[in-house]
Amino acid sequence: MTVAQFLVALLAIFAAAKLFGELAERIGQPAVLGEMIGGIVVGVSGLHLVDAHEPLLHMLSELGVILLLFLIGLETDLRRLLSVGGASASVAMVGVAVPFAAGYGVGWLLDYPTTLAIFLGAALTATSVGITARVLSDLGHLKTDESQVILGAAVVDDIIGLILLTVVSALAAGERLTVLGVTKVVVVAFGFVILAVLLGSMLAPRLIRVVDKLHVSKALFFASIMFAFSLAWAADAAGSALIIGAFAAGLVLATTERRVDIEHEVHDVAQFFIPIFFVMVGAAVDLRQLNPFDPSTRQFLIIGLLLTVVAVLGKLVAGYAAFGRPFRKFVIGVGMVPRGEVGLIFAQLGLSAGLLSSGLYSSVALMVIVTTFLTPPVLRSLLVKQPAEEMSTVAELVTDTMADKDD
Amino acid sequence: MTVAQFLVALLAIFAAAKLFGELAERIGQPAVLGEMIGGIVVGVSGLHLVDAHEPLLHMLSELGVILLLFLIGLETDLRRLLSVGGASASVAMVGVAVPFAAGYGVGWLLDYPTTLAIFLGAALTATSVGITARVLSDLGHLKTDESQVILGAAVVDDIIGLILLTVVSALAAGERLTVLGVTKVVVVAFGFVILAVLLGSMLAPRLIRVVDKLHVSKALFFASIMFAFSLAWAADAAGSALIIGAFAAGLVLATTERRVDIEHEVHDVAQFFIPIFFVMVGAAVDLRQLNPFDPSTRQFLIIGLLLTVVAVLGKLVAGYAAFGRPFRKFVIGVGMVPRGEVGLIFAQLGLSAGLLSSGLYSSVALMVIVTTFLTPPVLRSLLVKQPAEEMSTVAELVTDTMADKDD
Repeated sequence: MTVAQFLVALLAIFAAAKLFGELAERIGQPAVLGEMIGGIVVGVSGLHLVDAHEPLLHMLSELGVILLLFLIGLETDLRRLLSVGGASASVAMVGVAVPFAAGYGVGWLLDYPTTLAIFLGAALTATSVGITARVLSDLGHLKTDESQVILGAAVVDDIIGLILLTVVSALAAGERLTVLGVTKVVVVAFGFVILAVLLGSMLAPRLIRVVDKLHVSKALFFASIMFAFSLAWAADAAGSALIIGAFAAGLVLATTERRVDIEHEVHDVAQFFIPIFFVMVGAAVDLRQLNPFDPSTRQFLIIGLLLTVVAVLGKLVAGYAAFGRPFRKFVIGVGMVPRGEVGLIFAQLGLSAGLLSSGLYSSVALMVIVTTFLTPPVLRSLLVKQPAEEMSTVAELVTDTMADKDD
Repeated sequence: MTVAQFLVALLAIFAAAKLFGELAERIGQPAVLGEMIGGIVVGVSGLHLVDAHEPLLHMLSELGVILLLFLIGLETDLRRLLSVGGASASVAMVGVAVPFAAGYGVGWLLDYPTTLAIFLGAALTATSVGITARVLSDLGHLKTDESQVILGAAVVDDIIGLILLTVVSALAAGERLTVLGVTKVVVVAFGFVILAVLLGSMLAPRLIRVVDKLHVSKALFFASIMFAFSLAWAADAAGSALIIGAFAAGLVLATTERRVDIEHEVHDVAQFFIPIFFVMVGAAVDLRQLNPFDPSTRQFLIIGLLLTVVAVLGKLVAGYAAFGRPFRKFVIGVGMVPRGEVGLIFAQLGLSAGLLSSGLYSSVALMVIVTTFLTPPVLRSLLVKQPAEEMSTVAELVTDTMADKDD
């Protein structure tokens, strides 16, 4: 690949991301959907301008997802999360357990190997905290009771999802499914996060104090991303996932007094890399694998639609687990439906580990795209639009719809 | 290369850039010098953590230099430049002609092939507008007569240097040195810049108007870098150099009313990629090739020192070409001495084109490093420090020494 070819690939990625992101917004949808659809247009199903398996582009998209999880961690307030109490936790648990069982059930019905059935279950568990937060913020509903339950549950979901991801990664890497093996993976995953958060929380204030003494430009920015890259590397070396390390780095730095500055510093660079991830996700979707007129591919379309139905139903059921106050339970359920970035991370992991065939990858991607696509219009019909509120950086980055031309 | 290995390489690059950048500043030197020295430490001469020939890292460093030239173009005001008049133009001409002749003379004395002698001459012509501007700004002298002459001449030097670069690129690509051939290359290079600036100046306001209507986030940022990448690609396709296209894109966008916004938008992403370029430059320097105790390498050290002497003398002579007012001509000459980024671009081009051996590359790099290193303390001794002034974005990016922890 020459530098000129690399520039053409980047041009195709950014053009797809921004053109289709813009179109998505014009019809009232989050830009991230446009980015994925743009990816389909320039990828293997369309113009073949972007090769999802090109090592250099793959590496840049990995940087994108590492930065995204770092920012999600940065926006997660562990203490507030722990204090949200019963309703969120209950919604999160049911919202993981029911979709997992349903996805596993689909795999079992289709007579798939146990590992693959577990993977399908795991891919259904996530809730996109970014997309959900963005939609609620757009509608001016971020401070309602229902929204607090949704956001709390979505964050817990993300954490459980990342643990599940590690278990599934280990399975994908060929580890046998034994109680001991799973326990080991869960202990390593939890242990890494706990250790990283504990050690990191002691180190972070010192790091910030050192950074404050530096004269060199962008010291806080570089210290932050080096911290994130280091923990991502350490998580990988410890047998966990890169993105768990990046997420833990975000959690740790969220406890420092420079949290807002760090978000601000990392924002622009993240904006550069994150769309690459979403476009690459779309570029890997092979629509020919979902062709309803070809008997050999029709199954993947049907499986995708089946996964979509259980994905939606599983989260709607979870909404009814919200107890304690007279919540609008259907609203909570709908808010939990979009799978977004974590679901896509699962799908890509499955594909690159060789666990998902290209056809099944497309089934999972279809489920992610449809659940993410459905939520904004349905939520909008359920909630009356309120005056605009401030939205989070991550929500903005993920759904990418603010016209922040001057920032 | 796995993602984890990629993260380790990035960590090494950023650690080297920021640690040695910080050390350089502590001893009153520009951070860019620290970045190059940091590159030597982690590169082939030192810890071998960064391989200057790794394709992925090379591609990222190319993005860095494309963004750097785009920013230099953005800060260049063509009209003001044209109105600076005689003194600047005269200093620029002499400052290109004398070092070129001297470098060619060194090659001729050493009985090198004509192409190589021309290359050595061309590598001596550049003046680093970024480093010069930064030093003058640091000393609060940016608005003096001498500084205006230096800055005007440095910008003209950059443009002539880029044209020369295209000629030399064509030579390096094996084109024969005929009057027709050189004329063709000069016409293509000038023609491309003129055509790009003319067409671009008509298109840019329309582009800005379209961008202003977009809802999608970071529309101005993505439109700007896509414009830069497109012109870089077009320059390459037209037989010119990628960075000429990026520079022309900057010149064009500098004429729009959104110039300052664009600089601001591109700043953070450029800060991420530009240090990768300077560290990679250092990583490619093989100090063993400059070993004075080994007869086979001693020559490259001697050639490097010889190039350094003629590089300094050539620019000091140029200072005395400043006519019209009672300028402090020695100050102007000293201000023109640092070769900085354009000199390094020449060196890397020569290396990757196979025109410079690893030994001669180290000689040129030595000349660049010494001229860049010498200037700040000498200028400081000649000029009294004035109250702080605003400095340019490029100067800040290149020399990278502002403690802008909160921006």
